[in-house]
Amino acid sequence: MDNILHFRTSDILKSDKEFVFEKICTEPSNIGYYSLTEQNIDDIVNFSIPKNITKIAIIGIGGSSLGAKAIYKFIKSAKELKRELIFFESTDPLDITKQLSRVSFENTHFIVISKSGTTVETMAIFKYLYSKNDNKNSYTFITDKDSPLDSFAKTIGSNVLYLPKNVGGRFSVLSVVGLLPLFLTGIDIKALLEGAKAIKSSFFENGYIKDTLLKKAIFYAKHHADYPINCTFAYTEALRYFGEWYVQLWAESLGKRQKSSIFNVGVTPISLIGPKDQHSFLQLIMEGSRDKSVTFINIKDFKKSLYVPDIELKNLESLNILNNISFSDLIHKQSQAVKEALILQKDIPIDEIEIERVDEKSIGELMFYYELLTSLVGILINVNTYNQPGVELGKKILKQKLKEKE
Amino acid sequence: MDNILHFRTSDILKSDKEFVFEKICTEPSNIGYYSLTEQNIDDIVNFSIPKNITKIAIIGIGGSSLGAKAIYKFIKSAKELKRELIFFESTDPLDITKQLSRVSFENTHFIVISKSGTTVETMAIFKYLYSKNDNKNSYTFITDKDSPLDSFAKTIGSNVLYLPKNVGGRFSVLSVVGLLPLFLTGIDIKALLEGAKAIKSSFFENGYIKDTLLKKAIFYAKHHADYPINCTFAYTEALRYFGEWYVQLWAESLGKRQKSSIFNVGVTPISLIGPKDQHSFLQLIMEGSRDKSVTFINIKDFKKSLYVPDIELKNLESLNILNNISFSDLIHKQSQAVKEALILQKDIPIDEIEIERVDEKSIGELMFYYELLTSLVGILINVNTYNQPGVELGKKILKQKLKEKE
Repeated sequence: MDNILHFRTSDILKSDKEFVFEKICTEPSNIGYYSLTEQNIDDIVNFSIPKNITKIAIIGIGGSSLGAKAIYKFIKSAKELKRELIFFESTDPLDITKQLSRVSFENTHFIVISKSGTTVETMAIFKYLYSKNDNKNSYTFITDKDSPLDSFAKTIGSNVLYLPKNVGGRFSVLSVVGLLPLFLTGIDIKALLEGAKAIKSSFFENGYIKDTLLKKAIFYAKHHADYPINCTFAYTEALRYFGEWYVQLWAESLGKRQKSSIFNVGVTPISLIGPKDQHSFLQLIMEGSRDKSVTFINIKDFKKSLYVPDIELKNLESLNILNNISFSDLIHKQSQAVKEALILQKDIPIDEIEIERVDEKSIGELMFYYELLTSLVGILINVNTYNQPGVELGKKILKQKLKEKE
Repeated sequence: MDNILHFRTSDILKSDKEFVFEKICTEPSNIGYYSLTEQNIDDIVNFSIPKNITKIAIIGIGGSSLGAKAIYKFIKSAKELKRELIFFESTDPLDITKQLSRVSFENTHFIVISKSGTTVETMAIFKYLYSKNDNKNSYTFITDKDSPLDSFAKTIGSNVLYLPKNVGGRFSVLSVVGLLPLFLTGIDIKALLEGAKAIKSSFFENGYIKDTLLKKAIFYAKHHADYPINCTFAYTEALRYFGEWYVQLWAESLGKRQKSSIFNVGVTPISLIGPKDQHSFLQLIMEGSRDKSVTFINIKDFKKSLYVPDIELKNLESLNILNNISFSDLIHKQSQAVKEALILQKDIPIDEIEIERVDEKSIGELMFYYELLTSLVGILINVNTYNQPGVELGKKILKQKLKEKE
């Protein structure tokens, strides 16, 4: 993985870098996600389900599904997997009906994921499924140890696995939450963790990514008021759901009231996919308000030989310049062209990330990179990166409404 | 369709409403989308393709695909359609490979859509397809009259249909661009146009939507610097691709350099889906920077009876409040609860749109409503709503790169 910054970093103080690096070095002792790269995955790789199971359904929402979905969709775009993943992640009755039509109790294993064990969406859907099929072997539960759901799972005698301590939902992709379903589809979870570990080592042990990450985080935090929006612009459809994961990670971690102040802060994340969004959002970046930084994300090697053929179409001779180009090369050139056009504007902070290919190691690197970036920016803008108090009021009002109904 | 504004509108001047209404009344004479509700659709409803065709593939990007995709995915979530729509809308070699695996030249009709006739992505993919299958009957072309693609289509003797005059790509969903593929899947395009027409009449003939739309547009324009971001928060997965359409419409129409000034303006659109994004973006809206307005979009009647069963789970008795509730009711209550939580913050402008159900008339209403809103805001912030000069530089640089390669 490579990351090049095209914005000015010469004015970033050494002392700011030292300040934030010192702070982040204290986090691994009480924030769980940092040590997931060293976890024991024996329980996961020894997990066995019957041979007739061809589908794994995740009943979960937010941090309980976005990470696995991001990796699954990414890897699936490049290779055949041995099982399909299905996601029940909405209370929309049309969506539930659609997902139900894709599974059967004979061929599907259901993984019910809720950290608290009482997530409304997840438990409403689980209740529905359980009323149709109460075979304890159809379900595996992932929750906090001693949650109500843990107790329930034990009562019925189902398998239950625990989230590691101090790992929040949106930082849980590399825990059992993401690893179990991914492993069951045939994804190489060791390579995934190796990718994450490579970035972690590079950052904490003075490798190539350390200085870049520190500079980028400091730039985002310092210029937070000038550039309150950060867009990722990934040139591959394979990263669409990575985009959703990034939006959750960033929005929920950094959109906060500052510690010891009444300031509401946070950089707004937007996920774009190229070249499609060249025909949509790009105009706004180029000519709209100058409130956005943009991170291009490219795949170095698509490992796919597909070429525009060497044919001339009558009256369309101007398109001969496309002949004999590979689509990989074309999409790279599109990304480069847009990047250069934005750099020419001079007042839009641009950087570019390149990952090697569509494989487990590359996505592991990319995700751990983004987790570190989030933690760094959180320290710098002085928020609690790991809680989400703002979602409680809506939950409380919902509970009142549900009680009134009774 | 209904729209309730929860932000303060008492200070909106009658003269501002008169100003913008007078201006928009001059647009229908030279902006084409307004009159699409009255178009003759005989050519479309008489369009015949062989019985063995079960799939329609759209080769198009941006305005050439987003509108049809939004409506297709919306309707498909509630009813069986007679043909499948497939979208080739990226140069990503992995995505092209995936879409190719879903079609065959025997069972698929290809609709190639490019206003200019020389869109790089569309034409690169078309060249590839045409090199594999040059049967003129496999293709229909939609382009501007006398474009190079029109000439090519005539040369090979394929069917070609024209975009109406003065209809830009992102406003073309209700023209042949959207209507032809949608009609071929069995979608009721008359009802779609009726929905659009209902909103148009209501707006231009002093109906219920006129005052609301004017107030909303004036509020967005006046408070453009305070609330540079607008989020739609649609409580149904069925509107996911409507969200992408809205983002293009809004970003490309309003992200501009102002007429006769050097100001870069534009409100940034973000599409959210509930309840999923309660577990992602909501935290940022609740506690992050106060730079966002939010529009809730709800479906009044999902026409789907699906209930949380009346069962008690041991240790999960607290979830009994969910028993016997329909999922439709649950998702409505979730939307209401989050709306009320945001209104309590007092400094987040909220409004809510309710459409009747998941059918053609409702989506026709919603899309025309958003087109009108876009036109109104464009007038008020003094930009040219209908061009997109900012995307040209990237295209120019790409062309240079492609020539260098040669």
